[in-house]
Amino acid sequence: MLRAMAVSEVASLPTPALVVDAAALAHNLDTMAGALPGGRCRPHVKAHKCTALAREQVARGHRALTAATTREVIGLARAGLGDDLLLANETVDPARLAGLAALVAAGSARVTVAVDSEATVDAVAASGLREVLVDVDVGMPRCGCPPGDAGGLAERARARGLEVRGVMGYEGHVVGNPDRAARTSQTEVAMALLAAAHAEVGGEAVSAGGTGTFDVNVWCTEVQAGSYALMDTAYAALDLPFRIALGVEATIVSVSPKGWAVADCGLKALGMDHGNPSVDGYEVFFCSDEHVTLIPGDGTRPAVGDRVRVVPAHVDPTVAYHEVMHVADPDGRILESWPVDLRGW
Amino acid sequence: MLRAMAVSEVASLPTPALVVDAAALAHNLDTMAGALPGGRCRPHVKAHKCTALAREQVARGHRALTAATTREVIGLARAGLGDDLLLANETVDPARLAGLAALVAAGSARVTVAVDSEATVDAVAASGLREVLVDVDVGMPRCGCPPGDAGGLAERARARGLEVRGVMGYEGHVVGNPDRAARTSQTEVAMALLAAAHAEVGGEAVSAGGTGTFDVNVWCTEVQAGSYALMDTAYAALDLPFRIALGVEATIVSVSPKGWAVADCGLKALGMDHGNPSVDGYEVFFCSDEHVTLIPGDGTRPAVGDRVRVVPAHVDPTVAYHEVMHVADPDGRILESWPVDLRGW
Repeated sequence: MLRAMAVSEVASLPTPALVVDAAALAHNLDTMAGALPGGRCRPHVKAHKCTALAREQVARGHRALTAATTREVIGLARAGLGDDLLLANETVDPARLAGLAALVAAGSARVTVAVDSEATVDAVAASGLREVLVDVDVGMPRCGCPPGDAGGLAERARARGLEVRGVMGYEGHVVGNPDRAARTSQTEVAMALLAAAHAEVGGEAVSAGGTGTFDVNVWCTEVQAGSYALMDTAYAALDLPFRIALGVEATIVSVSPKGWAVADCGLKALGMDHGNPSVDGYEVFFCSDEHVTLIPGDGTRPAVGDRVRVVPAHVDPTVAYHEVMHVADPDGRILESWPVDLRGW
Repeated sequence: MLRAMAVSEVASLPTPALVVDAAALAHNLDTMAGALPGGRCRPHVKAHKCTALAREQVARGHRALTAATTREVIGLARAGLGDDLLLANETVDPARLAGLAALVAAGSARVTVAVDSEATVDAVAASGLREVLVDVDVGMPRCGCPPGDAGGLAERARARGLEVRGVMGYEGHVVGNPDRAARTSQTEVAMALLAAAHAEVGGEAVSAGGTGTFDVNVWCTEVQAGSYALMDTAYAALDLPFRIALGVEATIVSVSPKGWAVADCGLKALGMDHGNPSVDGYEVFFCSDEHVTLIPGDGTRPAVGDRVRVVPAHVDPTVAYHEVMHVADPDGRILESWPVDLRGW
């Protein structure tokens, strides 16, 4: 399908269309590979859901990857990127776990799964999978066992024949704090909880962190950063060395004499949980299913057919709506078109 | 793929999964067909993006359908549902318009397109398409020409050889008003603007309305209602005779002794612009990419592996994330699994 489109210029893409700034992407990937080389970063593919982009991360030395869904794990394995895959979420679905175990048995991937309860330990043990991390609650109200329970879960896992590679704990309540000093001290508090759990659990891995704490979390052995590759306006508000690489190309389809313009990029093309997207030269008035209504800034004179670049506030749920991302140079030439092939579950 | 899944019970579906309550869906479709029979309702498929569901609407007498994207129009035509398709959004994409013209030329569909500017009139005329509606701004800050410009646009369209079937105007600023009397009087104001435009434009069609105004908008000739089929918590807050038919089946994957539970239905499975979803027996604390964190209500004792039904606040951008919707009876037996085959653009 991508070949059939034969579109070589961003300006000719049917809209809305995901466009990646090749230079910003390369900058982001190179910056991370320099700061956290090799296994110090375990890129999280949930943020881009794209094996072609994961291949770029692996090519820069990050051979171990993080995934949020079994479909992501399977897709990465099939793409030959299965050296060391972590499913960083809990599941008790026997069919899905068996599917992952089959990948391992076939030699297609090494797969490690997060566990945080007796039920999840038992489900993994029953599946034939053999490696787990104990997921620990380090302050974010989501998954993870209490730090004091981690040792017991590790013991249960080992008694069931599982290898416990270590602990995992995501300081998700910290990664968005714009105050770097506060972000650092909050990370230290969270990682002290994880270290206490690690002392009981054992294993070599202390997996944690995200884009917002990639350079302040010096306590973990590997950082699960995802958003850094493409970035969004929420993370761009922090003092991070990563640039916004992702936007949604859209077309102005209506201009009102009352003072607004309408582009064809709406709620089905944008993750909205972090709020409205941003558009250079415009104030975003509101989004509806298929459109964004824009107020032109001083000097902006929109006309029907003009193109605008809509920059999402949250990259992950934006990418998940799209079938393909087009990687373009500064002149708007499309260098590559990458399927977003890890969508769904 | 659907066949290969061979899942016949909702309780065995991999999660998250879109589930449609067959009885509620039938009630909603029957209620609309009774209230606005035949061409009085032109169902909007953007709300469900599913040709199988559109077929149910056509079977109840609504042979004319509304679409938001060219892909929806093409998909409906290919499914044999092309009797009278309205693309209710403006586009100036020549390739897409030519694709629609080819459908018409092949006898696969009758296609009418919304226009609201000289540029959109000219684009449609150049494409070989032959039928338009003049889209009029009736108070919602989005597409639509000023009422006073509608006659001139119709004249331009006719001069370019187009047939002008009438006018269209969406009172989207009114449909969510919970006060029925206010909703009615606001609709009357909006439809007076549309009637004035219609007097200048001519043609038989006055296309307007939505689920929230389906029975108060007595001024239009056809209502473009979409959400009524599946419904969401936002529309359910109004005094409408439609029932919530859609939910996302999810699995509890983690339970914290601190008092919350986590289910595997997150931002990539839910449209979030109308706010958090709802879950019976729980308060929704927050959603993250892959999860919803839930506070159990009195008497709710969650366990890992339990199923919950997550009801979205906005149906359209929720459905657009999913590949399939499963239609189930009250006992949780899956009667049919319908591909969400009109996604994308």
